[in-house]
Amino acid sequence: MKNYAPQRVNPRKLERLVSLAFQRVGVPLGDADLTAKILVDADLRGIDSHGVINLHGYYIKGIQNGTIKSRPEIKIAAGSPTTASVDGDNGLGFVVSHRAMDACIRMAREYGTGWASVCNSTHSGAGAYYVLMAAEQNMIGIHFSTGGSTVAAPGGKGRLIGNNVIAFAAPGKQHGPFVLDMAPTMAIANKLHMLQWEGKRMPEGWAIDSEGRPITDPNVYFAQEGAILPLGSTPANGVHKGFGLLLLSDILTGLLSGDGGSMFRRKGEHSHAFCALRIDAFPSGGDFKDLMDAMVEKLHATPTVEGVGRVRYPGERGNLTYKERSANGIPLRQNVVDDLQRMSEDLNLPMDDIWEQ
Amino acid sequence: MKNYAPQRVNPRKLERLVSLAFQRVGVPLGDADLTAKILVDADLRGIDSHGVINLHGYYIKGIQNGTIKSRPEIKIAAGSPTTASVDGDNGLGFVVSHRAMDACIRMAREYGTGWASVCNSTHSGAGAYYVLMAAEQNMIGIHFSTGGSTVAAPGGKGRLIGNNVIAFAAPGKQHGPFVLDMAPTMAIANKLHMLQWEGKRMPEGWAIDSEGRPITDPNVYFAQEGAILPLGSTPANGVHKGFGLLLLSDILTGLLSGDGGSMFRRKGEHSHAFCALRIDAFPSGGDFKDLMDAMVEKLHATPTVEGVGRVRYPGERGNLTYKERSANGIPLRQNVVDDLQRMSEDLNLPMDDIWEQ
Repeated sequence: MKNYAPQRVNPRKLERLVSLAFQRVGVPLGDADLTAKILVDADLRGIDSHGVINLHGYYIKGIQNGTIKSRPEIKIAAGSPTTASVDGDNGLGFVVSHRAMDACIRMAREYGTGWASVCNSTHSGAGAYYVLMAAEQNMIGIHFSTGGSTVAAPGGKGRLIGNNVIAFAAPGKQHGPFVLDMAPTMAIANKLHMLQWEGKRMPEGWAIDSEGRPITDPNVYFAQEGAILPLGSTPANGVHKGFGLLLLSDILTGLLSGDGGSMFRRKGEHSHAFCALRIDAFPSGGDFKDLMDAMVEKLHATPTVEGVGRVRYPGERGNLTYKERSANGIPLRQNVVDDLQRMSEDLNLPMDDIWEQ
Repeated sequence: MKNYAPQRVNPRKLERLVSLAFQRVGVPLGDADLTAKILVDADLRGIDSHGVINLHGYYIKGIQNGTIKSRPEIKIAAGSPTTASVDGDNGLGFVVSHRAMDACIRMAREYGTGWASVCNSTHSGAGAYYVLMAAEQNMIGIHFSTGGSTVAAPGGKGRLIGNNVIAFAAPGKQHGPFVLDMAPTMAIANKLHMLQWEGKRMPEGWAIDSEGRPITDPNVYFAQEGAILPLGSTPANGVHKGFGLLLLSDILTGLLSGDGGSMFRRKGEHSHAFCALRIDAFPSGGDFKDLMDAMVEKLHATPTVEGVGRVRYPGERGNLTYKERSANGIPLRQNVVDDLQRMSEDLNLPMDDIWEQ
């Protein structure tokens, strides 16, 4: 077993390192700063699978090998007062997604709602960030994205569809924000990577091999092109529901944006959809934040079975982690630190100061 | 075991009987015809749990005992060009929902999108009908609704939240329409009723008793106020995802409409949300229907494991059933026929001709 003792790094200094790395590979200052902010935000929220763990191997190398453009020409075409199609020109998904959600928020400010469908984007990290952009403006934020094509159809053999994202945020008053950021599948590939590193097995029902047989060894998943199962896993447990939600996400992202969705895409390409919904554009929405608080308090007061703490709302743990890590630093696994070290050497960047609080 | 041999009834004549029944209890002709159309549509699509099975015991008796108003004053208040709050005045959920989705379609026609949030409604049957209204207008239809409060929180004891609905439709060209109509839970209560009638047990993981212990006997569920589990069922299998989707649905329906959602409602009350999204309001949406067809053909061509037929899209079975039952009649269980018979006697209606094809 390797030593993965977490080391705490300074979020602001980590963010600066990340921005400098993107600048070194040609990303303009504003886009580099924005991308760094969104990536480190995932680590602050405890979404470690979508933070700087992917910085070097996925994003920086993606720019270096040309699958991600450092200086894209993002095009936004409005088709009505509340709808837009966005062509990301294969730029960083963070920059493309931020532009698209920003357009939705502007449309919603004026007309109540805004929707954007996005093609030719790349991986945009954790969906939580974009829906929280809306929540901060007293709007409901909704986001869909194609994920890596790692998921089987119910009863199917092999990888067919993306591990697609559904994200949703709404503001509260004393509590919140509510942030749901999930894939309607049994797991995401990064989770399987983590189990592999830790020498652990997957629970039963998460994945199948290329012949459709159940597997629990993550090494078999990666070695033999295994596939993850949709949420529900089996017919009796509702696998068609998870699969239906994956297709719904593909329709709003890939089909509405014209690129065909996760079953037809080029490697590395992602499509997205965004929606902002202004709460005070609903005459009945006046008590919304109070009702959000009441909902949270109802969850907290729910009796639980022995051994289970109180019922939490989606995003509650992330909100707590955000505060704790903002104060005390972000714990990074040793292999992530090693990877940042290699990247910093490659790009001739100093990373010695990221441990200073 | 009783005899539940299905008897085929004439859909048009069944629809007329249903409309007459609603008229007898004071529903105006137009609303009675509309409600009959939507109820029988569920039976035509094979959504037997949401069709005329509930006519007598739920809707007619609901009007007779005053929980559902036969002549509501439905109020629609616009808060922006694309958003509306609807107060259903405890009218039939079918009538209220039809009005709300119709408002969304009108807003989407002019401004690209339309959203409505609805309070003081009652149960509105199968969500498929309302999202298909949008699909027939070359729009994407999205619908949420609170379901019966029968679902536990992850790790919680007892019934807490509604068995909430997520429905979604999109039009195709050769194939389709795509219709997802689901609750992000392990089952709905009507399904448990059906198992009870048939003397069968539930699969493991569907439900718990009032102390949070797993149960598989539907009789125990009904006798002891058991609770259904969110989709995922266990922490390892993603129960927090199903629960998150239930809360999402509550937020868009009950919180945005001002009534507090399924955890706070009066008995019989339902809230809804509707969205229509005009496909040609997206400049990138020009090939949408061709891409839908390509998606369906990709699913059909997916290799499957032994014993599994081809992979189907959501709504495919319903679309086939709709055609078959429109031609050959709707098979009704004996207990549904008995119930219609009792209702017809109560209301002094003739039902002898519904078997004529």
